[in-house]
Amino acid sequence: MNDNTISNLSVDCVIFGFDSEKLNVLLLERKLEAENGETVFCDHTLVGHHVRVGETLDESAARILEETTGLSNIYLEQFYTFGNPDRLKKPRAKLWLESIGRNPEERVISVGYFSLVNVNSVHVSYTERHASWFNLNEIEDLGFDHKEILNKALEALQTKIKTNPLAFELLPQKFTLSHLQKIYEVVLGIEIDKRNFRKKVSQVPYIVPLKEKQQKVSHKPAQLYMFSRDIFEATKKKDFNFSF
Amino acid sequence: MNDNTISNLSVDCVIFGFDSEKLNVLLLERKLEAENGETVFCDHTLVGHHVRVGETLDESAARILEETTGLSNIYLEQFYTFGNPDRLKKPRAKLWLESIGRNPEERVISVGYFSLVNVNSVHVSYTERHASWFNLNEIEDLGFDHKEILNKALEALQTKIKTNPLAFELLPQKFTLSHLQKIYEVVLGIEIDKRNFRKKVSQVPYIVPLKEKQQKVSHKPAQLYMFSRDIFEATKKKDFNFSF
Repeated sequence: MNDNTISNLSVDCVIFGFDSEKLNVLLLERKLEAENGETVFCDHTLVGHHVRVGETLDESAARILEETTGLSNIYLEQFYTFGNPDRLKKPRAKLWLESIGRNPEERVISVGYFSLVNVNSVHVSYTERHASWFNLNEIEDLGFDHKEILNKALEALQTKIKTNPLAFELLPQKFTLSHLQKIYEVVLGIEIDKRNFRKKVSQVPYIVPLKEKQQKVSHKPAQLYMFSRDIFEATKKKDFNFSF
Repeated sequence: MNDNTISNLSVDCVIFGFDSEKLNVLLLERKLEAENGETVFCDHTLVGHHVRVGETLDESAARILEETTGLSNIYLEQFYTFGNPDRLKKPRAKLWLESIGRNPEERVISVGYFSLVNVNSVHVSYTERHASWFNLNEIEDLGFDHKEILNKALEALQTKIKTNPLAFELLPQKFTLSHLQKIYEVVLGIEIDKRNFRKKVSQVPYIVPLKEKQQKVSHKPAQLYMFSRDIFEATKKKDFNFSF
């Protein structure tokens, strides 16, 4: 390969998509040419590629994401680096690497990034590789060591959402508490008691109730809330809690 | 360099050491040979080296740590990877890389690991490179981009100690609450109100008061406590709290 990339360094992006009901992951479909010339399905992988000479890891992640999916300017966070010498040694991975001119014996280190987006607010553009959303709970196996990367990304996302106001990135400016609760349930994979959740929210100064209700809904309109970053910054806990 | 290592991949270990009073970091002293043949001080760096062919990143971190300091079997956790193309371009870094036969123009990716140990329970052995403890608050600059790596490691350690029972790794089996409080104060860089802290501890089921007191102390002996991992695992919170 002579494409101005570093042959033993790649970036893989785990793009989590929330669709109001469940958590999805953006995957690419990989195909191989069979002996009879037909293109056959090989496996699914995360969105990733090699890092270019002269580009930072963050720049690389943003570029790879935009090239493959058309998504730009979305939150991306580095979470872990995968460097097992055997990570590309699955039989189908070898076939596929050979088919694109990479040496399957070369040890490639992959730096993992994750992101969390609302699937309704982004447009996944299809380039030469087909990218689409898959229900996280239905993903059984992936190419290379990408299932391991996905599992580690989910852990990192769960820690992040428990320790940072990340959930609000996924909500419109004015939101209902049911919507907020659903994000925590879907990301943490737990059921949260509605009354308990509302009691907790009422003690959080930066989740502000508005004098407004939902409009144009068939059910009883729910109260709207907003997240105030100003209040969040001003009241951030400097004290320590045993919250684990 | 022909030492069976991957030339563009290294591991750097940030070893935090708690000494009952403050947080320290283990640093190496780097020296250069001056024109007159004298060996002069160059700068301090973290403990790090290149990854060997065939070795996982975790194995590499453990090996580097043991080779340089004699420390083995200690908790090490990967936290971030540093890959800025300019990270080795400081003038003194170039001089030093040339002096050991490395190409200063080569872009090296470094995978960061951190650890937290009790300085009194470990023996830092001196190998050809002098390793010693430095007060975290007094470290101004380091070689390469190691100050940035150190800052990022401290952030990772703070998140980890807030979300996991890491503090207990540093304590003897039976400890006082003053000792536990000090660990949180030193790592988080905050002052914690003693009464508040004790009130919180009394609500935590896995910090168990014992029917024992300190012995052989000049002041009034304090009550001893223990951390029960059994109780911790059985009562781990599956619910969600706005604890940020």
